[in-house]
Amino acid sequence: MTIRVLVWGENVHERTNKAVASIYPTGMHSCIADGLNEDAGLSASTAVLQDDQHGLTEAVLAETDVLFWWGHAAHGDVADDVVERVAAHVWQGMGLVCLHSAHFSKIFRRITGAPCSLRWREAGERERVWVCNPQHPIAEGVGPCLEIPNSEMYGEPFTVPEPDETVFVSWYEGGEVFRSGLTFKRGNGRIFYFGPGHETYPIYWNEGVKRVLKNAAKWAVNPLGRWQDIDNAANVPVAEAREPLQVKGPKLHEEGEAGFR
Amino acid sequence: MTIRVLVWGENVHERTNKAVASIYPTGMHSCIADGLNEDAGLSASTAVLQDDQHGLTEAVLAETDVLFWWGHAAHGDVADDVVERVAAHVWQGMGLVCLHSAHFSKIFRRITGAPCSLRWREAGERERVWVCNPQHPIAEGVGPCLEIPNSEMYGEPFTVPEPDETVFVSWYEGGEVFRSGLTFKRGNGRIFYFGPGHETYPIYWNEGVKRVLKNAAKWAVNPLGRWQDIDNAANVPVAEAREPLQVKGPKLHEEGEAGFR
Amino acid sequence: MTIRVLVWGENVHERTNKAVASIYPTGMHSCIADGLNEDAGLSASTAVLQDDQHGLTEAVLAETDVLFWWGHAAHGDVADDVVERVAAHVWQGMGLVCLHSAHFSKIFRRITGAPCSLRWREAGERERVWVCNPQHPIAEGVGPCLEIPNSEMYGEPFTVPEPDETVFVSWYEGGEVFRSGLTFKRGNGRIFYFGPGHETYPIYWNEGVKRVLKNAAKWAVNPLGRWQDIDNAANVPVAEAREPLQVKGPKLHEEGEAGFR
Amino acid sequence: MTIRVLVWGENVHERTNKAVASIYPTGMHSCIADGLNEDAGLSASTAVLQDDQHGLTEAVLAETDVLFWWGHAAHGDVADDVVERVAAHVWQGMGLVCLHSAHFSKIFRRITGAPCSLRWREAGERERVWVCNPQHPIAEGVGPCLEIPNSEMYGEPFTVPEPDETVFVSWYEGGEVFRSGLTFKRGNGRIFYFGPGHETYPIYWNEGVKRVLKNAAKWAVNPLGRWQDIDNAANVPVAEAREPLQVKGPKLHEEGEAGFR
Repeated sequence: MTIRVLVWGENVHERTNKAVASIYPTGMHSCIADGLNEDAGLSASTAVLQDDQHGLTEAVLAETDVLFWWGHAAHGDVADDVVERVAAHVWQGMGLVCLHSAHFSKIFRRITGAPCSLRWREAGERERVWVCNPQHPIAEGVGPCLEIPNSEMYGEPFTVPEPDETVFVSWYEGGEVFRSGLTFKRGNGRIFYFGPGHETYPIYWNEGVKRVLKNAAKWAVNPLGRWQDIDNAANVPVAEAREPLQVKGPKLHEEGEAGFR
Repeated sequence: MTIRVLVWGENVHERTNKAVASIYPTGMHSCIADGLNEDAGLSASTAVLQDDQHGLTEAVLAETDVLFWWGHAAHGDVADDVVERVAAHVWQGMGLVCLHSAHFSKIFRRITGAPCSLRWREAGERERVWVCNPQHPIAEGVGPCLEIPNSEMYGEPFTVPEPDETVFVSWYEGGEVFRSGLTFKRGNGRIFYFGPGHETYPIYWNEGVKRVLKNAAKWAVNPLGRWQDIDNAANVPVAEAREPLQVKGPKLHEEGEAGFR
Repeated sequence: MTIRVLVWGENVHERTNKAVASIYPTGMHSCIADGLNEDAGLSASTAVLQDDQHGLTEAVLAETDVLFWWGHAAHGDVADDVVERVAAHVWQGMGLVCLHSAHFSKIFRRITGAPCSLRWREAGERERVWVCNPQHPIAEGVGPCLEIPNSEMYGEPFTVPEPDETVFVSWYEGGEVFRSGLTFKRGNGRIFYFGPGHETYPIYWNEGVKRVLKNAAKWAVNPLGRWQDIDNAANVPVAEAREPLQVKGPKLHEEGEAGFR
Repeated sequence: MTIRVLVWGENVHERTNKAVASIYPTGMHSCIADGLNEDAGLSASTAVLQDDQHGLTEAVLAETDVLFWWGHAAHGDVADDVVERVAAHVWQGMGLVCLHSAHFSKIFRRITGAPCSLRWREAGERERVWVCNPQHPIAEGVGPCLEIPNSEMYGEPFTVPEPDETVFVSWYEGGEVFRSGLTFKRGNGRIFYFGPGHETYPIYWNEGVKRVLKNAAKWAVNPLGRWQDIDNAANVPVAEAREPLQVKGPKLHEEGEAGFR
């Protein structure tokens, strides 16, 4: 079954910065989607900040298996209700892959519950992305490490929750390190953060990076689909208790009444 | 050093429901704070929803080591900016103890990044809170289990992120189970969720429950205090790189410029 | 591709205890394997303690994708070198499913590094196995819970390391709870512990239990196969360093020499 | 209360290798213990491989709050029964700090249950140990990073279980990275692994390293002491069940009989 990927890009610097436009003439989101579409098992489309509802309507998300997110200059322009909608879909089972500066996106901070800050330096320095587990599905075919000739340094402390798995750790020419490939789970949704991807360098044209993103798309799919009702706290009527039960003491709720939210 | 605890209560049912008022005539928050104050190492005060800014101003939070949270009927009435302020203090190092129906509070959902739903039944049934690790500091002195004669059933699936530690798991007379004592960490802050505490039963008068809450207050303190700057992504100037570095390639930012948020 | 499962049983009580023999006339291992073989995607065979090398030779393990383990009375009779061989295969990528009293097997204690003790009572009481995440692959098709009419009670504290995922938690008629479905990872191998399975009750004939075991076999397979070399600490010659490097200071090892073990 | 630390060293290269002897004339274990003893809250003594039972008798371990372990050339000479004894004390609540080449010690492999392999290079290169959480107790007072002028490279993949906390990650001059400060828990015992410490460089004389080791000793203490009985699976007699219970079905064990091991 083909995996339906939606690549979301804020699409700002591609239109306002000459250096970025020359690397990504059709937008970073398009380049990322094109890379994913090289794999016959993936079908990637795109959405951008400027679309109605940022292109992330209920209907679109319902048809999305994995959402990729790239944002940087315009995190604050993403509508809060869209962020909540995306979070709800992740909880239900949509995969989420947050790229580079999306560490500070509303959705990544929302879904991790953490500040997600880091230290950074834009010097075009060399980054070497080391694989911590060569047989993690996201690292398949990557080899011992990825060499990225020019990259933005992202350094520790990276204030995320302790991840489920540390897949990659990066080395930088200027002397820092960064946990650059991390997995998380929230509700029924699988989340992967990947560090490389600064817009002034052609990182999403890198074959190794493309490989990681294809792997991540496949890893992030939940094979059991969506748990639509995950955000609902269902009442269990006394009559349906598994063990015989007599009600005792005072009650707030009438039988069958919905709980407070 | 005395630990400064702030017990926050929504203070609604105590004033509107006779059953609750008779059990907690001065409010649930007061009862909880009184229990904590039995311990000479703890100094607990209270704040309620109806206070200005819900009693959770920047100044108050800055003087709080551990915040306890009880809410149920009025989760939606808590202002979003106060929730963000509390989250920021947790990241900096304030402890947070979320009680019972606070599983659905804005702050617990915000800080876990998860739906935090569960199944429930209000039948006054027996709950037995089992200790999964008798030498976890939060379980100190509790014995193998707590017996709660009348409780609201909270049942699995409890859709929180996999916790750092499972301290308690509850058994219910009607046949369900619930992971009722869980620890998490976000940024520099320690978070504990504790299940028992329905307002129509005298659960916060229970000696075992009081013991757990005292232990939790002590556990949740971060001995190293606050990391004020945790939410800031600091630029590392090229000249301050640990290894000699020449800038290569195009840049988005001028040297020393702040990053995007 | 068919998953090759090996079901290992100690095969003692089936031959020495009338009650067990009447439930499992061809052995528990055979019953478990038969259940797995109902699924066309699984091909299960068996091995027992009494076989040469307990049926767990290097050749057999090399052809095994997932190993199931049931033991109880004869944990101490399992040869230590076989345990180490099994652990090495798990590290390389073989899945391991430990059943019921295998909590105290040498291999489960070896691979978790923990005591794995618990409390127990043999009273034929009712066990209800609750699903903590209905969309975990191991819980697929199980529904909200499994009802086991007669079971041995296993109770907390269960002194395992905090698991990667808590899939099931059990309720017992006599008042206890138990984390009865837990996942772990060691090296490249996925490990699942499942609580139900006392030999004096027909638990492996239960359709829900059979479903869990089929799911577990599929979950435990590592799609990337074996990492043969995982236990080797490879030297990286100075000449192959990714960055130009001059040797400084004294050395213990000659260039290219193997490390100590 | 003074924390009783025991520093265990294999004491081989200090006596057989001139370079090592010149740096650690009284042994590495003595240097480490001297560093710890600078802190009035710590009382460190030493034991070595050559002592009777390696200096790790039941009586000695019973009086030890935290055990430090340094070994390299002679891992294989450590008696298996001593390793099991140490593991049992860790489970009961003794802290364990494993240093550098102790990644391949019997005790670290035993207690993690994992291969613990890594890649290495002995070139005296620069190592920079970055702090991932500046307010973790083990990182207190360390600053953003430790600079170690000459070090042995330890590189990923480091095949340990995913740790509870990643405290340090190291950068190497030759281009590698390593998760060099990791915490684990087994039973009631806290475990810390710390990477730096190759014997041909004066690393344990480094003030920053000494600070980390002092912090680690304090962190690893379990304030609730030992849980002597943690490795025992206790029977719960039917008559002591918390809920009224009638025995049903066949039984293997007579009432009150001990379980199998």
